Amino acid sequence: METKSENACFGGVQGVYTHASKATGGDMTFGLFLPAEAKDGPVPVLWFLAGLTCTHENAMTKAGAQAWAAEQGIALVFPDTSPRGEGVPNDDAFDMGQGAGFYVNATQAPWDKHFQMWDYVAEELPALIGAEFSVDMDRQAITGHSMGGHGALTLAMGLPGRFRSVSAFSPICNPMRSDWGRKQLTGYLGEDESAWEAHDASMLMKSKGFDGPILVDTGTNDQFMDLLMPETLAHAAAQRRQQAILRMQPGYDHSYFFISTFMEDHVTFHAEALYAG
Amino acid sequence: METKSENACFGGVQGVYTHASKATGGDMTFGLFLPAEAKDGPVPVLWFLAGLTCTHENAMTKAGAQAWAAEQGIALVFPDTSPRGEGVPNDDAFDMGQGAGFYVNATQAPWDKHFQMWDYVAEELPALIGAEFSVDMDRQAITGHSMGGHGALTLAMGLPGRFRSVSAFSPICNPMRSDWGRKQLTGYLGEDESAWEAHDASMLMKSKGFDGPILVDTGTNDQFMDLLMPETLAHAAAQRRQQAILRMQPGYDHSYFFISTFMEDHVTFHAEALYAG
Repeated sequence: METKSENACFGGVQGVYTHASKATGGDMTFGLFLPAEAKDGPVPVLWFLAGLTCTHENAMTKAGAQAWAAEQGIALVFPDTSPRGEGVPNDDAFDMGQGAGFYVNATQAPWDKHFQMWDYVAEELPALIGAEFSVDMDRQAITGHSMGGHGALTLAMGLPGRFRSVSAFSPICNPMRSDWGRKQLTGYLGEDESAWEAHDASMLMKSKGFDGPILVDTGTNDQFMDLLMPETLAHAAAQRRQQAILRMQPGYDHSYFFISTFMEDHVTFHAEALYAG
Repeated sequence: METKSENACFGGVQGVYTHASKATGGDMTFGLFLPAEAKDGPVPVLWFLAGLTCTHENAMTKAGAQAWAAEQGIALVFPDTSPRGEGVPNDDAFDMGQGAGFYVNATQAPWDKHFQMWDYVAEELPALIGAEFSVDMDRQAITGHSMGGHGALTLAMGLPGRFRSVSAFSPICNPMRSDWGRKQLTGYLGEDESAWEAHDASMLMKSKGFDGPILVDTGTNDQFMDLLMPETLAHAAAQRRQQAILRMQPGYDHSYFFISTFMEDHVTFHAEALYAG
């Protein structure tokens, strides 16, 4: 593992690290914020999965999460959204390939060799962080934005017992029925739609739900609303009687200005779950 | 004036606007955050002047200032750092020309035609904002980072009565004696160093001071410390018995992670001055 940068930040350290990844067959870069409390012992951790076109850097520099994580004594992980580099396949469109891993393990060529983002985020990166940093991997929570909101919700429901709480900003809620989903799930997982259901938050809410609290914010002026379909997740969550707070935020759009506005709420929400019991 | 974007943000609006500028002889772009209170009447305003290589966008997306400005009911202006475009002269180095206006009115060719950033920030842009937005131009404060900290301090001392308070993050404190200064002041203002003194915060502190409170933060690990020379400003301020809080922040560097960490302090500091009396 190589340290790319470490900056003092809200009394802690905002680091960027690169490591050779077995899951994705190449170098991966991630951001990690450690609050001051990490010096005294392992701290709980909140994952932030980013959206289409993003790297590890977008939320790390624009979401304003460190202020609140420092206040709560919580670490933040900012993974990249896909494998990258010359040997890694890509697509001309922004919504497939590099920057658009969709947090699945691809089974279809040419993607299957590198695009194992589920394994990367669910297994390899937590193991690395638990081993190398003062982070308590028994106290994890997860959030994300857009494609990363989809990732947060599907990982949380797909890995029962792993995360104490899950939240999302403008998540893609029903990718099996969305142009942000059908193309990618077909490309990465093949044409058998039954293989897609483990990567659709609304389907997972119907079949499994989540054994903890959920918070989801979507802006009423989100320019991608038709692709996100928050109504499908809302219906499934209510039908299941899932413990959940699903909010439509008047006037907000899909941008990081929206995310930063409600970041305090999300970090506080996760802190309650991470420090409970 | 053309609206480039408007995003809901912390209950207010983060806008980006472009306008034809007489001062700089071309189109200029700026960011303006208006808190919710601006709907009910003019609100006080805090200027943020950015550093070398920055546009209007850097602090607007990375400084985390909107959270605190919203809490205090204060508008934020994010001007660009220079004129831009094909007809505008430039320099191969990052520290001169486009992105590096140094907040002076150039008197020397080829810069004098466009590089009138003092007039732009001190006269033209405030007039435009006062006319077009719900902002109270009788209640202004100013801050900035690095080259923009230099700009904030020199504008505040150079325009007595204009700003109620001034602060800076890692400002260039003594450009007449710095490699971030001598080259630019020579290029923009000519070789007569007496013309530089109105654009050197330490010299202005000796000759004039500021009729209000000053707050300056510099990180002890700032990688550009030798170019900033906070000790020169500290000496001059103490010698003048200037009302000032000059802080060296242990471990922090020159980055926006430093700025965002102390932004709450700065906005709160300005709010006290803007709402006093």
